[in-house]
Parts: sequence; structure tokens; C-alpha cells
Amino acid sequence: MINKLKYYTLLYNTIVIVNMKYFKRCFEFLSCFQPMKDLCPDTVLGPYFSDGMRRVDYVLTYHIQKSGSTRRRSSRFGDNNFIQRLWRSLSTRSSRAPLQPKEDPEVAAQEHQTDYHEDDKRFKRDEFEENLRKTGLELEKDEESTIPGIGFLKIHAPWNVLCREAEFMKLKMPTKKVYEVKQGSNVVEKIRMFIHKVTAPLHPKVNTSRSQCEKPLCHAFSREKQHLDIFIDCSQLLYEQWASYSVFYKYQPIGLIRKYFGEKVGLYFAWLGVYTQMLIPAAIIGVIVFLYGCATVDDNIPSMEICDPRNNITMCPLCDQACSYWKLVTACGTARASHLFDNAATVFFSVFMALWAVLFMEHWKRRQMRLNYVWDLTGFGEEEEDHNRAEYEFRVMQKKLKQEHSGLMVKLSQLFSDKICCCCHLTFSQNEFNLTGKTHLINSTSLAALHMSSHPVVRYNIRATVKTTAAIINLIIIIVLDEIYGAIARWLTRLEVPKTDKSFEERLIFKTFILKFVNAFTPIVYLAFFRGRLVGRPGNYLYVVGSYRMEECAHAGCLMELCIQLCITMLGKQLIQNNLFEIGIPKLKKMLRKRKSELDSIQEQVLHNTLKRYEKDQLLGPFVGLNPEYMEMIIQFGMVTLFVASFPLAPLFALLNNIIEIRLDAKKFVTELRRPIAAKAKDIGIWYNLLRGLSKVAVIVNAFVIAFTSDFIPRLVYQYMYSPDGTLHGFVNHTLSYFNVTDFDPGTEPLQPMHLGYKVSVCRYKDYRDPPWSSTKYELSKEFWAILAARLAFVIVFQNVVMLMSDFVDWLIPDIPKDISLQIHKEKILMVELFMKEEQGKRFAARDNQDNCTIPLSANQSPPQPRSRPVSQANCS
Amino acid sequence: MINKLKYYTLLYNTIVIVNMKYFKRCFEFLSCFQPMKDLCPDTVLGPYFSDGMRRVDYVLTYHIQKSGSTRRRSSRFGDNNFIQRLWRSLSTRSSRAPLQPKEDPEVAAQEHQTDYHEDDKRFKRDEFEENLRKTGLELEKDEESTIPGIGFLKIHAPWNVLCREAEFMKLKMPTKKVYEVKQGSNVVEKIRMFIHKVTAPLHPKVNTSRSQCEKPLCHAFSREKQHLDIFIDCSQLLYEQWASYSVFYKYQPIGLIRKYFGEKVGLYFAWLGVYTQMLIPAAIIGVIVFLYGCATVDDNIPSMEICDPRNNITMCPLCDQACSYWKLVTACGTARASHLFDNAATVFFSVFMALWAVLFMEHWKRRQMRLNYVWDLTGFGEEEEDHNRAEYEFRVMQKKLKQEHSGLMVKLSQLFSDKICCCCHLTFSQNEFNLTGKTHLINSTSLAALHMSSHPVVRYNIRATVKTTAAIINLIIIIVLDEIYGAIARWLTRLEVPKTDKSFEERLIFKTFILKFVNAFTPIVYLAFFRGRLVGRPGNYLYVVGSYRMEECAHAGCLMELCIQLCITMLGKQLIQNNLFEIGIPKLKKMLRKRKSELDSIQEQVLHNTLKRYEKDQLLGPFVGLNPEYMEMIIQFGMVTLFVASFPLAPLFALLNNIIEIRLDAKKFVTELRRPIAAKAKDIGIWYNLLRGLSKVAVIVNAFVIAFTSDFIPRLVYQYMYSPDGTLHGFVNHTLSYFNVTDFDPGTEPLQPMHLGYKVSVCRYKDYRDPPWSSTKYELSKEFWAILAARLAFVIVFQNVVMLMSDFVDWLIPDIPKDISLQIHKEKILMVELFMKEEQGKRFAARDNQDNCTIPLSANQSPPQPRSRPVSQANCS
Repeated sequence: MINKLKYYTLLYNTIVIVNMKYFKRCFEFLSCFQPMKDLCPDTVLGPYFSDGMRRVDYVLTYHIQKSGSTRRRSSRFGDNNFIQRLWRSLSTRSSRAPLQPKEDPEVAAQEHQTDYHEDDKRFKRDEFEENLRKTGLELEKDEESTIPGIGFLKIHAPWNVLCREAEFMKLKMPTKKVYEVKQGSNVVEKIRMFIHKVTAPLHPKVNTSRSQCEKPLCHAFSREKQHLDIFIDCSQLLYEQWASYSVFYKYQPIGLIRKYFGEKVGLYFAWLGVYTQMLIPAAIIGVIVFLYGCATVDDNIPSMEICDPRNNITMCPLCDQACSYWKLVTACGTARASHLFDNAATVFFSVFMALWAVLFMEHWKRRQMRLNYVWDLTGFGEEEEDHNRAEYEFRVMQKKLKQEHSGLMVKLSQLFSDKICCCCHLTFSQNEFNLTGKTHLINSTSLAALHMSSHPVVRYNIRATVKTTAAIINLIIIIVLDEIYGAIARWLTRLEVPKTDKSFEERLIFKTFILKFVNAFTPIVYLAFFRGRLVGRPGNYLYVVGSYRMEECAHAGCLMELCIQLCITMLGKQLIQNNLFEIGIPKLKKMLRKRKSELDSIQEQVLHNTLKRYEKDQLLGPFVGLNPEYMEMIIQFGMVTLFVASFPLAPLFALLNNIIEIRLDAKKFVTELRRPIAAKAKDIGIWYNLLRGLSKVAVIVNAFVIAFTSDFIPRLVYQYMYSPDGTLHGFVNHTLSYFNVTDFDPGTEPLQPMHLGYKVSVCRYKDYRDPPWSSTKYELSKEFWAILAARLAFVIVFQNVVMLMSDFVDWLIPDIPKDISLQIHKEKILMVELFMKEEQGKRFAARDNQDNCTIPLSANQSPPQPRSRPVSQANCS
Repeated sequence: MINKLKYYTLLYNTIVIVNMKYFKRCFEFLSCFQPMKDLCPDTVLGPYFSDGMRRVDYVLTYHIQKSGSTRRRSSRFGDNNFIQRLWRSLSTRSSRAPLQPKEDPEVAAQEHQTDYHEDDKRFKRDEFEENLRKTGLELEKDEESTIPGIGFLKIHAPWNVLCREAEFMKLKMPTKKVYEVKQGSNVVEKIRMFIHKVTAPLHPKVNTSRSQCEKPLCHAFSREKQHLDIFIDCSQLLYEQWASYSVFYKYQPIGLIRKYFGEKVGLYFAWLGVYTQMLIPAAIIGVIVFLYGCATVDDNIPSMEICDPRNNITMCPLCDQACSYWKLVTACGTARASHLFDNAATVFFSVFMALWAVLFMEHWKRRQMRLNYVWDLTGFGEEEEDHNRAEYEFRVMQKKLKQEHSGLMVKLSQLFSDKICCCCHLTFSQNEFNLTGKTHLINSTSLAALHMSSHPVVRYNIRATVKTTAAIINLIIIIVLDEIYGAIARWLTRLEVPKTDKSFEERLIFKTFILKFVNAFTPIVYLAFFRGRLVGRPGNYLYVVGSYRMEECAHAGCLMELCIQLCITMLGKQLIQNNLFEIGIPKLKKMLRKRKSELDSIQEQVLHNTLKRYEKDQLLGPFVGLNPEYMEMIIQFGMVTLFVASFPLAPLFALLNNIIEIRLDAKKFVTELRRPIAAKAKDIGIWYNLLRGLSKVAVIVNAFVIAFTSDFIPRLVYQYMYSPDGTLHGFVNHTLSYFNVTDFDPGTEPLQPMHLGYKVSVCRYKDYRDPPWSSTKYELSKEFWAILAARLAFVIVFQNVVMLMSDFVDWLIPDIPKDISLQIHKEKILMVELFMKEEQGKRFAARDNQDNCTIPLSANQSPPQPRSRPVSQANCS
């Protein structure tokens, strides 16, 4: 039936939900069905059929052409169709529609609507309505609506239909038996109670409202779970206790959210809450690590050596001809700054964050399990919600028709789909390449311009500024490409024509994730692992595209630049995406609306007041699914875990963002979007797998960042293998190789060799190579290989140790919280006891007629008497 | 109730199952309950109560002391108690009891039985029997049994009790509706049919027996799943079609096994079958890899160079004083043999086996899912079977009692448990150390003795023999320690007093696994990674324990020795454990029995014929669980996957062993052990996790074996970095460093320096060190570090690539087979349709009284009419 509903959304424009109760979930709180009228004072106009008795559970809307049989009032808004379109495109835009499959049929239908004859459409609608009636639904049409050009079909689901659907969905009905949740005497329980008391002000004020509508009838339905209590007008309460910045420090009223939006949305906000909560310790440790870096910057021997003016080291030029020799002391600032993100604490923090990611996953698994229990989803199978897509069925039908005509078309379409695959691959790799190229180009051109200036001090002070500018340009490219990639992923997935909604969604998410992830992380990966690696050496630099020399990093590694890029990407992406897209665009929309309504403002005012509830909802933006929200968070999670070794403040930034994000999303869901169709869900689906994948990749990436991007391993190797006194004194000298300036290739030597005021015969460069006086001059030295081996050994050890620790933590923490498993067990025992008592009563009655020692012989032949379980016996009334 | 049954096994000696039908499963085929009498002709004496009507479902046995009230016939077997004990200890031994928790209470009870007064025990038994009666069971005592000293309590579970239990267990009842499993028109289905036809002779002949007992009543119960058909005397059929070596090439009759032994045992054999089946391709590829090694042994440049007599390389002595210089050409044989296991194909085979392990896990998951569906276990929750252990409850009771007396005891016991933890750790590490020490000692002493002889040719030909002898000694130590470790694990776990049976089993398995695994793999790990690594260099050897020099490997790496060790361990362990313990000991038992019965053979003959079925069963060995069987297979799986890089024939050996193992286990289960209590299980539990853990570890271990044990990486590095002509010519020379004999420490130079017939001034040794004429003489050379870096890089690449590929394969193959998920879906749709039709019939009847367009207003207020699902409505009769 639901399937059919979806199929016909190609004919009807859109589905609007006007009721607090949504079709599928209403069974659970049906006891409060009737009193709803009193609780919702604004429903006089809207949510009832014209008889004032039957409630409107669902509304379908459709477009009425002027050629239709019923003429409606004159078009009040002038070119009404245009405004409608503008409106739709705006609302679609603000909620980042590209990820939403459900929106597509609508748009498609609108575009193709001229293809259908109006009479044909009306006929199909009639057929559909007949089908709806056959399933037991009751319908009422409203084509004389205040909004012209749109017809409404109101649907009422009577009690028996609800009962039937609830049975299919295996909705759990509470029995009359109430049991006490154990307030145990053990220490754990006491600690939990204490924590609960301490955090009491953090809990949202939703319990107090319970007494307002406590009714004896409702009470029979309520289990000892508070959220299952009477359902009141949640919208207002949600707005106050959830969708407000003033309650940012409080827990979210998850139960209420689930009640109002369904489990799927509830799980998203629960997940977001757990993630934000888990970010708090990570942010604190991150800040401590950063502060440790700040505090020890003056004790850092390598940067001290670099900054020491007595250390008169002449460095080789950083570019051909234009650059000249320079003194190492000019790199002092960068070296000091690098220490902030490149110290022993960073390694510890990497390990910590890898374990943190595992802990977070574990914590979420437990929370999800708890929610499943509290929301009575334990017996719910996921596959029941998985319906074939309307588009898929349409294609299959098309294919069948074509097959009847000729087999040729099928072959052609197969060829076509092969081609699509190729295209997909091509697009993907091309884009990736482009981006890397761009980043590279930006950095290089700006740097090259600066290098033309021959004042090294100026150059090194400005270096950070250049990097920052480059990072910002990068960021803008990322954001623009993000939107393009979203469209590409959607286009590709639609070409695939997946069979079911679930597979469509999963494929789309996976594609979008890959593309957006690559988009967000390509410049970072480039900076972390490739920048400055393949530069060659003085006299034998590596040139690409003919004469273009590869970039070098500043003296103290690329970690500093990586850090700036991460910082800008994280802050910028969140600021722009949050503020511009999620706050700015809605504001813009309102302004547009205002300007528009200046023409006939009074008229509209009147109109707005007389609009029915479902007509008002029609004017809101459509709900486009949770995927954009999840995607944003996953990319953020990637930033927080993947390169945490180079940017310990990432968790803090993420935390600050999320605190705003929760309330922002809440506001959007409560006030700006149409109410979504409640969807049942046991878990967060593919997102969990993506998170797990990310936290696995994070371990490896962090291992490589520490081993190759930071100077941690070379320092260690120097200290324990080469240092004469076991300290880092002399480390800087050890990392620099010698170069005889007579070995410069002709045409690459500096134009101003006397720039430093003296003639340079031997300059230094950062690499481990044999000196010019060795028999194997400029070859990679033994130290290089030793350090490389140490780096690689570190990667192996780090990866395996962290993986082992993660698996251990995973194994240590049970997936089902102890108290929940105890309660489930207790419930089962209570059920069995109830059943046994009933049983025994019968048996004793039968036994009284017989001797206690001999056993009735007929027992063997007696026909079985099947009984249904108490659960299914529970009465609705 | 089951819980109580278990608790009281401390009072009763043992639980014997005499019936083909076991207590918990009989509900499913109850329709064939009555005709059983005809089908089992040998049941006249046994399985009925004295009234000949009620069937014996369960038998409890207990010990009757002479002080008991009822005196029985004179003890016919002399010291009956002794024989009983011997009997029990033998049967316990042969089935490797150490892992079985259920046996413990019995033994404990027997040991402590003198503590209880007989009257006290009788009183408790009476109480227990009364409890049993309360649950609806019917009892009959038989204390006048033919076996003296043992009383039997026969239990009959009447129909209504079975019905109730079946409801608690949520046993699925087939509805009357029969649906066709789609024999689809698509290609996959056709291929499946074809394969089925081709493999028809491989299927066991169990279907033919269906027609023998087809009855109309049974047919109503049967779904379209053949195994759900009528249950006949399985024992005989199982013996013929399963527990016979003549059917070794056939599939196992898994359905029948499950019917007779329950799901847990069924899953074990299904798993064993899948494992054996999956070993076939692995064995084939392994043999090909081995043959490739044989075929290319003559083209192998390094071994050609070693065997070339023109290559006149003088090597440094392998031990102090006693050994002298030797010529590299004498290592020719070993070098050629090493090539068999150390070539490019080995690397490929390692990757293949890592993926094979993943494929195996995936295949098993799917098979398990299929079995779950076919066996109707999809709705069965694991936790329902998890009962508290009797011992745990006993301890808790004890603790409570003590707590009432004084809090001191509790503290003491806590202290005690802390101590246990320490002990555990200590024992573990000590044992490990001992073993390594021993292996080392064996190898070294035998080798040292041989080295005393100064004939190098003899020495090198005998080398393999020595290794083999050492490996055999090792094997014996492993087998002996295996038994000890089993006992230690059991003892440790019992000290922990885990709460439930499940947690007890899991903890025990985990401990046993760790201990046995360490035991089996310590010598192999030592050989693979430590042997010959830390030997130092000539003139500066590493000495341990004062003057004991570390062992060296033969010239061509330790891979050869590792291979011999693996080969012997695998073959030997399997041969000894299978043949000696599983075939030999039962034979011995029979012989013992025969000798014993020579005294009164005729008397016993008579006795044996008159024994009732349950008395005969009492004489069989007790079922001690599946854990020893699983453990054996897991260790074998470890051998097959962990060091496969060094021994490509491992899968073949494993395959041959398993083909025998299946039938051996089958024979044991069918003929030699008491029938186990059928246990429901959805999966193989902790074993799956252990398998997964092993296949993860296997990736890393294989990476290290290839990188460090084999010469694969040095060869590659030489070929691409150092070789003048890009071939391996000169590789042997490159791996040998120079040593100036004047640099020998005084007292370590050879006693016979002129042994080769000429004066040696510079000898060679296998290492990458700078030559004596270098400024950094005898230091590790640049080549060493380069090769080390290459080795480590290989480990990282190998590990991550294989892990990625594994994850990809894991992701690619759906866990639920497509046809199964389709069938589940179809079942659901059919159920819904059935329900909808019923529904619609009612609705149309109601609608005829009203207008088609207006909707009945009263629908809203009509009281709900809950219906139970068709499943629970299905009638038993």
C-alpha cells in the first residue's frame, strides 16, 4: 500500500503531512486520539474532514490544470506557477536537495507534466483513489482550496486499518502488567543515580508537561517508560526545549523528537548528541596537548638551534636563479611554530584519538541498543521497510515493453550502461586530478611571486600569510566542487536504477561520500605526504611539465602548512556551510518573500490567517532526508580523526560547531521544513560502516603523519643512534647535507650569489645524502635508510598496536549495556511467570479430580490447545 | 525448569538420554509420535513406562548407597564402584574431557559424595522430583535395575507440557499453506540445478527413506523442506550414510544430524564440512605452488651459484673452536631445498590464502544463514539458552551464608581471587618460556654434537635429519603440554566462577585457545622470526647464559627448518591425536573390557541382552561437548593460514586429515558416546571470533614471514638496486660480508684452521656489514638499512593491501544468500496476502449494507479487535 502510494507520487505533486499524528505511528498512542481536539486549539479549521469527526491523517496534493473540469477562483498571485517554482527551488536549495531521492519523481513529474493529458491524469488519480479506498482508507477531496492550482486529497485512516497495519508492523503493545525497573542496591546503580542528580539541570524540561494531560485511560497504556506517556502538542515543546540556542548546554529530548519525527530522525539526533558529548573529552585533551606545545616551545632544542644566530648555517637556494643562498636563522619563526604541532604529546594524542574513535563507536552501539530497547524496536526487522523504487518498476515496465518490440533496445541500453561506468570513472579521476593541480598551482604561483623578491626575512614572515591565502582559495574550490560532486553522485546513482529505496540510498550515500571525501581531503593528503617529498636535491632538482620545479616545504617540515590548511578547511567549511547555507539562505528567502508580498501584503495577511493547517504546511520547504546532515558530520569526523596528529585543536573546533549545529538543525526541522514521514529504523545504517571505515583509515593515516610528516622519528633516531651525548643537540646539523656550489647545473645557479655578503662555496640542504667529498657523493646516505627503516617500523608498530588496542576495547565493552540486558531478561522471566501461573491454575483444577501420584493416561492423546502469547492478547481498549 | 534440572545434576549422577526424541525438540514432529513404536522394534524393553503407553523422554540416574532403604541384588561385578570409576575416567579421557564444564559437577559430586548423608540426599531428590511433577512432568522410578548401585528416574513429558515449552521456545509451526520455492527461469537457477545434478552421487542417500513411512497425517505437517519430513530411526541411517569411511566423498546429511543431535552439533559438522570443502581449492593451489618450486629449482640463480664449485667461497666457522672454516658449496643441498618454499609463487600463495580465509568466513556466514532459514531458527534469540551455572549459584549461596557470619571471609576470598589472577599470569608466561627454552636446547644440543664431527659434508647431509629429530621431540612435548594446558585452563576458569554456562564456556575456550595456541606455535614463531637473527657476527658473537652462543640458520635462511617443523607438527599432531587418542584409546578400552569380561563372559552376555536401552546407554562414554573438536580444527586452521608462506602443502595435509576427521567424529558420536542433550544454536559462537582473529593475525604473520624469513626482499632489492645486469647473478656474493680472521676474539678461533687445506686470511659470513677495510668496519652497512627499509615497506604494503582486499571481499559478498532473502521476503508477502484476503472478505461484507461513496462514521469509535497472527493460530492436530 505504501509502495503504491509512492508510485503514484509521480501523478500527485507532493505529499504534505498536516497532522501531528502520522499515518503509520498513530496506533501506538491511539488512546489519546480523541482528546486531541482539545490539545490542539488551532485545529478547528484544519485537520478534520468536513463532518468534523474524522481526523485528517494524511494529505496528498496535486496540480489542477486550467483545462480541468472544476474552475477555481482567479489566480491571486499573478503568475502563480512561477512563484510556486521559485518557492520550490528555494526551499530545495536551502536544505541541500541533491541527496534526496524522494524529491526526484516530483520534479520529474512537474517537468513532464505537459506530456500527460489532463484527462488521462485525472483518470489515473481516480484509479489510485479507488485503490486507496480498497485498502480501507477514507478520502475527502478539497479542490476549492485557498491556494489556487492545487488540489488536496485528505485521507483518514480508520481504527481497523490502523490495527491491521500495526499488526503488520509488529508494533509492540504494552500489557497491563507494570513492572518496576530495578533501582538496585549496588554501587554502580548509586553512582548512576548520583550522576543523574548532578546532571539534572542539563536535562530538558519535558517531564513536567506530563501531568497536564494525565488521564486514566492513557495510564493503562503507559509502561514504566516516561516517554511512552501521553502525546501532547510536541511542536511547541520541541521548539522551546530543543530548537533554541538558550538550551545549548542541555541534553536533547530524544524521546520527544522520536515521537514527533519518527525513529530515523530521532536516531540522527541521538547520534549527533553522542558524538558531541564524546567530543568534549577529546577537545579538552587536544587543548592540553596544544598548550603543552606552547609551554615547551622555548625548551625545544632543534628550534633553539635554528634560532641561535651563532649557528651560522648557509642554506642552498629554494628556487632556480631568482632565489639566492639564505641563512637558516631566518626559518626561526616557522620552526618555533611547528613545534606547537610536532612534539611528543602529538604522538600520544594520535593514539588517544584512535582509541577515542573506537570508544565513540562502542558508546554509540550501546546507546543505540538502549534506544532500541526503550523504543521497543528490539523485534523490528529492517527489511520490512524495503520497498521497490517507483523508478525501478517504471524502468522494468519500460524494458518489458521494449523487449516485446525487439531485443535490440535491450542490448543498446546495456551498451549505454557500460558507457556510463566508464564515464563515471573518468569524471571521478579527472576531477581529482584537477583539484590537486589547482591546489598546487595556487600555492606555487603565490610563492613564486614572493620568491622573486630577494628579501628573505620578508619572505619568511609572509610565508604563513601566503599559505593562509592559498588555503582559503582552496576552501572555496572545495565548497563549490562539493555541490557539483553531490549532483554527479545523484546523477550516477540514478543512471544505475537500483531496485529498492534502501539500495538507492546506500549507493548514493557511498558515492557522495567517496566524492566529497576525496574533495575535502585531497589538498590535505597532498600537503601531508607529497609536498616536498619529491623535490630532488640541489644540482639535480626534479622538474615536472618541462621546467617547473617541485615545491619544497619550510625547514621544519610540512606539518605547519598542513595545520593551517586543516584549520582553515574546518573552520571555513563549517562557518560557510552553516552560516551561509543554513542561516543565510533562509534569511534571504524571507526577505524575498517580504519584497514579493509588499505588492499585496494586506491581502496575503488575510489569506495567511484563513489558510488551513495543511495549506500552511504546503508553503514550507520539503524534508529532503538526513543524508546531508550525516554527510557533513562524517566529513567532520574525518577531519577530527584522520589528521589529528597535525592539528590537536580539531576536536575543539568540531565541538563548538556541533553545539551550534544541533540547535540549528533542530530549528530547521521544527520551523522551516514540512514534517517528515516518520520512518522506523533500528540503526543509522550505512553511516555506521562509513564511520568504522574512517576510524580504521585514521589509524594508518595518523601513523604515516607521525612517521613521515613530523620530525618525530628522525629526532628519536638521532637521539639514540647518532647523538654524542644522548640529547638533541646537533640534530639540526645532522639533518642538513652538504652541497658544493660548483656542482650546480648550468643555468640554475643563483643570479645573486653574493647576496649574503660573502662568497658561498658549500651550502646546506635538508636531506640525508652523502657529502661532496664522499666517494658516493650526493647519494642517499646510510642515515637516510636507517631513518626510513625506523619510520616504517614505527608505522607497523603503531598501526598494529593501535588496532590491537581498538579490538581489545571493542571486545572489553559489551555491545548491550548490562542494565538493559538485565531488564530484557527480567521482562522475559516476568512473561514466563505470568504464563506459568495461568497454566498452573488450570492444571491444579484438573488434578483435583484425580489421585496425586498416578498420572492421567489420557494426557498423551489429548489434542493440543494452542494459546497465543499474552502480548498479542493485550486488548486495545 | 531446565535450570533446575541442571542444578540438581549435583545430586543425580548423570543425565542419560535414551530416547530418539529428546525432550526439547519433540514438539516439531509430534505427529509421528505415536507410530514410533512400530518404527523402533528394539524399544519393547526400554523406552516406555511400565504401563507400555507413556514414552520415556528423559532418564535421570543417581547413585544408591548401601545405607539406602531399598536393598538391591548382590553386587555382581565385585568392586563395582571401582569399575564404574575406571569406566568413567576412560570414557572421559578418550573424548578429551578437559574442556567440558558439564562433566565437572558430576565428578565433583562423586568426590564429595561421602560428605552428604544418604538420607539427606534422598530427601533432596524427593524435593526435586516433586518440583518436576509440579511442572507437569510424569515420573517413574526404576531402582531394581540390572546395573547395581544405580537408580533410574524415567521422565515422560506429556503433550501439554511439550506444547507449553514449545511456545516458550517459540518453535515455529508450519502452517497448512504450502508454497512453491521458486525454480526460477534465470541462468543462476539453471546453473544451480545443473550443479545439483552433477553432484548428485555426492549426496548422502537419506531422501529415499522418506517413502517408507509417508503417512497422511505427517504430510499435513511437512513444509516443502525435505528434512522436516517424517523422523525415522535416524541412528541406523546416520551410521550407514554418515559415520562410515566408505562415504567419505559424499556430502554430510546435515539435516539428519541436526535432527538427531540438535542444532549445536549440526552446526559443528556443517562448519567442518564447509571448511573441508574450502580446503580443496587451497590444497590444489598449494600443490601447484609446490610443483612450481620443484620445476624451477634448476633455474634458480642463487642456488646455482652456491652449488657451482668454481665459486670458491670460504665461510667463517659456525661455532667457536670446534668448528672450522667451510666452503659455501657444501650448503648446496639446503639451498636447493629452500627454493621449493622460497620463490615468487610463495608470495602469491600467501596473498591467496589470506583472501581464502576471508572467503571461507564469508562462505560460512552464508551457509549458516541458509541453515538458520532451513532450520527455522531466524527468530530464535541466543540469550534464551543462557542459564546461571549451578556452581555459581552455589558459590553465591555460600557467600551469602558467610556474609551473614562475618564480612571477613568475603575480603579473604577477594584477596584470594586477586592471587589467582597473579598465578594465572605467572603460570602462563613461565610455561611459554620453558617451552622456548626446551626447543632451543634440543636443537642446539643435537647440532652441537654433530658439529663436533669435523666432516662438513656428513654434517650438511645430516642437518635435515637432525632438524627432523628435533621437530619430533618438539612435537611430543607439544602434545604432552597440550593436555596439561587444557587442565590448567579448566582449573583457572573454575576458579573464576563465571555466572552463566555461556560465559563459563566462552572464558574456558578463550583460555584454552590462548594456551594451546601458544603451545603449538611457540617453536614455529621462534624458528620463523628469532632463530639466527640475534647471532652477532664473527668476532663478536652474542652469548647468552654466560658462554652459550646463539644458533645460526643454514645458509639459505631458516625457511627450510621452519618448513620441516610445520610439516612434522601438522602431520604428527594430527596422526597422533587422531589415531592414538581417537582410534587407539577406544580400541584399548574394548580390549580392557574384553579382558575384564573373560571372568564372567557368559554371564555378561546374558546381562547385555537383557539390558534395557537406557541401561546400555549408561555404559557408553558421556558426551563432553564440541569444544575439543573445534579446538583441534582451529589450531589446524592456524597452521594452514598463519605460516602458509613457508609451507604451501599445509592445506593438502589439512584436507586429508579432515576427510578422515569427519567420519571419525561421526563414528564417535553415533556409536561410542551417549546421545547429547540437543541444544539450540544459531551460530558457532566464540569460535567464529577466534577464526576471524586468526585470519587477521595471519595477514601480519605472513607479511613478516615473506619479508624477514624468506630471501624474497633481499633478492628483489639486489635485482633492482645493486645488480649490474638486472639479474640475480652475484646475489650470493652480495649477501656475504667479509671478516678478517685476525679479528677473532682470543679463544674463539677454530682449533683446526688448516682444515680446508689452505691458510684462510679472510672468511665470509651471511650479513650486511661493512668490510674490514672500511673506516666503519663490521658496522651494519648501507645495504642492510636499505634492505631493512624495503622489508618493512613490504610488510606495510602487504598488510594494508590484503586487509583492504579482504574488507572489499567481505563487503562484496552479501551475508544473506540472495535466494534465501528472496524466499524470506516471499514468505512474508504470502503471509500478508493471506491476511489481507481474510480482511477484505470481512470488509466487503460490511460494505454491501452501505453506500459506496460515504464512509461509515462509526468506524472511528469502533472498539479494536485484536487478532493473533496466522502462525500462532495454526492448529496442532
